[in-house]
Amino acid sequence: MYRTHTCGDLRLADKTRTVTLAGWVQTIRKFGSITFVDLRDRYGITQLLFSENLNSNLEADPLGREFVIQATGNVYERSNKNPNLATGDIEIGITEFRILNRSMTPPFTIQDDTDGGDDIRMKYRYLDLRRHAVKKNLELRYAVNRSARNYLHQHDFIDIETPFLIKSTPEGARDFVVPSRMNPGQFYALPQSPQTFKQLLMVSGYDRYYQVVKCFRDEDLRADRQPEFTQLDCEMSFIEQEDILNMFEGLIKHIFKEVKGINYTDTVQRMTWEEAMWQYGNDKPDIRFNMRLCNLKKPGTVFVDRTDHYALINDAGFAVFDDAETVVAMAVPGCSEYTRKQTDELTEWVKRPQVGMKGLVYIKCNNDGTFKSSVDKFYPEVKLRAISAAAGAVPGDLVVILAGAEERTRKAISDLRMYMAERLGLRRPDEFKLLWVLDFPLFEYDEEGNRWVARHHPFTAPKPEHIEVMIGNDPVIRDSEKYLEHPYAGIKANAYDMVLNGNEVGGGSIRIHQKDLQEKMFAALGMDKEEQEHKFGFLLGAFEYGAPPHGGIAYGFDRLCAILGGSEIIRDFIAFPKNNSGRDVMLNAPSEIDGIQYEELQIKLDLKR
Amino acid sequence: MYRTHTCGDLRLADKTRTVTLAGWVQTIRKFGSITFVDLRDRYGITQLLFSENLNSNLEADPLGREFVIQATGNVYERSNKNPNLATGDIEIGITEFRILNRSMTPPFTIQDDTDGGDDIRMKYRYLDLRRHAVKKNLELRYAVNRSARNYLHQHDFIDIETPFLIKSTPEGARDFVVPSRMNPGQFYALPQSPQTFKQLLMVSGYDRYYQVVKCFRDEDLRADRQPEFTQLDCEMSFIEQEDILNMFEGLIKHIFKEVKGINYTDTVQRMTWEEAMWQYGNDKPDIRFNMRLCNLKKPGTVFVDRTDHYALINDAGFAVFDDAETVVAMAVPGCSEYTRKQTDELTEWVKRPQVGMKGLVYIKCNNDGTFKSSVDKFYPEVKLRAISAAAGAVPGDLVVILAGAEERTRKAISDLRMYMAERLGLRRPDEFKLLWVLDFPLFEYDEEGNRWVARHHPFTAPKPEHIEVMIGNDPVIRDSEKYLEHPYAGIKANAYDMVLNGNEVGGGSIRIHQKDLQEKMFAALGMDKEEQEHKFGFLLGAFEYGAPPHGGIAYGFDRLCAILGGSEIIRDFIAFPKNNSGRDVMLNAPSEIDGIQYEELQIKLDLKR
Repeated sequence: MYRTHTCGDLRLADKTRTVTLAGWVQTIRKFGSITFVDLRDRYGITQLLFSENLNSNLEADPLGREFVIQATGNVYERSNKNPNLATGDIEIGITEFRILNRSMTPPFTIQDDTDGGDDIRMKYRYLDLRRHAVKKNLELRYAVNRSARNYLHQHDFIDIETPFLIKSTPEGARDFVVPSRMNPGQFYALPQSPQTFKQLLMVSGYDRYYQVVKCFRDEDLRADRQPEFTQLDCEMSFIEQEDILNMFEGLIKHIFKEVKGINYTDTVQRMTWEEAMWQYGNDKPDIRFNMRLCNLKKPGTVFVDRTDHYALINDAGFAVFDDAETVVAMAVPGCSEYTRKQTDELTEWVKRPQVGMKGLVYIKCNNDGTFKSSVDKFYPEVKLRAISAAAGAVPGDLVVILAGAEERTRKAISDLRMYMAERLGLRRPDEFKLLWVLDFPLFEYDEEGNRWVARHHPFTAPKPEHIEVMIGNDPVIRDSEKYLEHPYAGIKANAYDMVLNGNEVGGGSIRIHQKDLQEKMFAALGMDKEEQEHKFGFLLGAFEYGAPPHGGIAYGFDRLCAILGGSEIIRDFIAFPKNNSGRDVMLNAPSEIDGIQYEELQIKLDLKR
Repeated sequence: MYRTHTCGDLRLADKTRTVTLAGWVQTIRKFGSITFVDLRDRYGITQLLFSENLNSNLEADPLGREFVIQATGNVYERSNKNPNLATGDIEIGITEFRILNRSMTPPFTIQDDTDGGDDIRMKYRYLDLRRHAVKKNLELRYAVNRSARNYLHQHDFIDIETPFLIKSTPEGARDFVVPSRMNPGQFYALPQSPQTFKQLLMVSGYDRYYQVVKCFRDEDLRADRQPEFTQLDCEMSFIEQEDILNMFEGLIKHIFKEVKGINYTDTVQRMTWEEAMWQYGNDKPDIRFNMRLCNLKKPGTVFVDRTDHYALINDAGFAVFDDAETVVAMAVPGCSEYTRKQTDELTEWVKRPQVGMKGLVYIKCNNDGTFKSSVDKFYPEVKLRAISAAAGAVPGDLVVILAGAEERTRKAISDLRMYMAERLGLRRPDEFKLLWVLDFPLFEYDEEGNRWVARHHPFTAPKPEHIEVMIGNDPVIRDSEKYLEHPYAGIKANAYDMVLNGNEVGGGSIRIHQKDLQEKMFAALGMDKEEQEHKFGFLLGAFEYGAPPHGGIAYGFDRLCAILGGSEIIRDFIAFPKNNSGRDVMLNAPSEIDGIQYEELQIKLDLKR
């Protein structure tokens, strides 16, 4: 052992002990004939004092930042204590030391506020990882991992490893594939999730399974998506939805308590998917703040059971609203005094191509009780008051209204809601609000193919009361215009998402465990018998030998950790992440391979010009 | 929840409680109008009693083996208690039940002693996994996993996930590669181990790292090797070899205690690699039994410091011994009375192609003090007595002697040692003996290329006293005949293997942390500057910024679990293993992929005729 203590260990109680530390030189400060060195390791920073008698050594072979040294000396009480350091009461009077390894000057200094920019950070990730800001993220990640494992262990879950070299069953996302040398012309696929394996484990009677496991999706990477990512994956048998919700609320509360010291005693709110879409325009609403939507005009075909406020804006000759499929309003608290410049800013924001609106209508609900709007010439004050009231605005609020095509408008108002909350400081990183979103539609309509696709995945069970609808009806959509009238459009899934601060951190469902229902599901998704057998024959086979009722959940572990760390940048919570082109710039991977590798694998390149 | 209790929960104390259980029908026995059903789940088996009033239900819709049912009833004390079952004191008088799912007749019965043979087992792995014999293996695996994590956590290790899509650096074993769609013409590789990443984490100051992680090697599969396997991977900074040995003896003892209930208090034996090869012919000797080798004749060039017993067999005119490079004897306890048939059997055993010896010489050390040998005509009794004495034989032993080329003969006697121990019942699955093998050679001679290859891997440090030998000498071998005289042949590595019952369960080393030494190592292995930079530029780069002294170990987790389970068949300790052709016969993977996948990846097949 190169040390007797770590750089985080020593306290005043250790005074006069002779100790040996080893670590990295954080800073060097000379005061006359005395040199102070802050020595750093994973556990902390300790101040070393090199007095005059070591000057000749220091001059002959000077220390530098990030040098690795071993130093022995006695623990002294500091005259100038540093209350910000756990070891701030003491310093070590060094009697001997040696340089274990040298360092060139790093491309950026190893401090929280200097990282040299993203490209440099990623190339020198091994130095970036030294920064306290990154280290605490990985430590948090480990704490979450451990806390989750402990909870699941206490509840009889068992960690079972599932295979990585599996079969390609392109369904939804694209598989990464691996050519097999031993089986030329054939490929393995890397798992997008252990979904079917955990279901087989339930069929095998393992009852409660978990795994913290890498998954792979070969998708075009949006900002902050990774081709390999980690799931906390769980499955249970002989349970119903309510059991899962309780078990996994418990898990997250346990993590809150152990990792964040937060006693989350609130009842976790629940909301149907439809409610979330109606009230927030979004199936993962951030409920730390209010700002619910007021649906002034809904398209005729969706939200059939809901009533909008079209009467408030109708018959005013305002074509923008009349011609729009959807008109939706939201009261932004305390912004009635926004200047023209500020409202113009908001308008520009929604007109950006990422949002794609044509414009923004606003109503200022002035503190004096008057109303001022960008559409004054169409709507008299009494109408503005009524619209504002419908939107739940109080004096001092700014009501913003977007109009346009259903999906885009709903997404835009939902984005605007988050943007305004961010601007107004309502998205506090130290506040955590959990939400279950329930009763998702089982199917989504695929316009291109005029067919149904699985909203969650093809293993999700319909609500028990909808099984008959599914079994009893032909999935084929005769009239694509009227797909919403097809009985399948109303089938709800026994599925649930866990939402934390506006992020989907986990999602799952009760699974289909009946062979006939699973076959009907595959058929509904357009798979004929042969394709079903080829892709999922093993699962259908397993369902013939006594499959129990079961269900589960998977957490996006990278995202969960990021949010618990008060961030939404998952890359900062992964030790060696890839960039947006899927490259590891430190390794320079992917890269070309040797000719012999092509030969052995019996493949060759077929590059497009 | 479909149940109030599991099938392992209920005891006499629960008498008269009304309970609901859910599980699989293990057996059905009818006694007149009463039906007994053993209901099984992960936690145990509980006897259900269906009395007469349920007969009409049972007749209308009969139960079958492996049906999944839910049943409610009252807990009764059994008249016929079953002491072999934890729930054997009680039974449930069923009042109502329902079938949750049916089962076809399984291809084999779900019992310990019926598995239908390997092919069927693997195809119906989800049924095989139901067998108690397999389930207890996976439960043991989880217990080992958890116990290891707990120990490492207590010792400040932190679990950090390393990437799976990395760079191909063919070195030793073959990489599995993954074509990158986003970077056409380029490939990722799947990691053979997280070696360089864990070293980078040490450079980053994480001090103590662990991970239970999948690794991949595209090798021709010998029996019981898997293309994907699990490593328990650990690394520490600021330590020396002794620290690692202590830490990881502690780990294994902790696992013994927690998982096996064994208090392993013996000092863990240590042996140099040379000693192991000399005394056991093998670098992973099983030391549960003795049977050490007696080197009657060693080749002139190896074991230079050792003295053989050639004088005992020399000058007898026995050409088999005189012409052999190596002659080695072993006393097999208690086998002096082997019949001619039995000694012939042994001779046939060593002549099998897998062993490859020309024959076997034996000396019977009779209980009456006489000696009888297959080479009586060359060696008088006094010689036989002397040879037997040198081999440590006592009256009643059978001395076996093999002669031939160095490597083959040493391997053969070592195999024979294990075979005889197995025959004699000396390899008791419930006895555990740990051993550290130390001081491995740093290099191995590669005859084909007339060059050095790394025995462990290129990151292993030489013994401190051999660093100068390595730095100061040219690695080039001028005279291939005399490679053993090259200074590099004597360089020992700071490497260690943990051996358990004759199996290498873990191996590791102190790593090189100096850039110049690492470059010298790469050069010694025949890598020029350009190749070094291309393959390992990131590591050499990292070593420029303050790399601490560090080292670690990796356990073959599948094998470790198998041995702790008293088996050497790792496949039985993996939930979804592959067969010897690397196929998952349940999934039928690998398999062909779609044309669109080739197109997107910009590769095509190039199959040899």
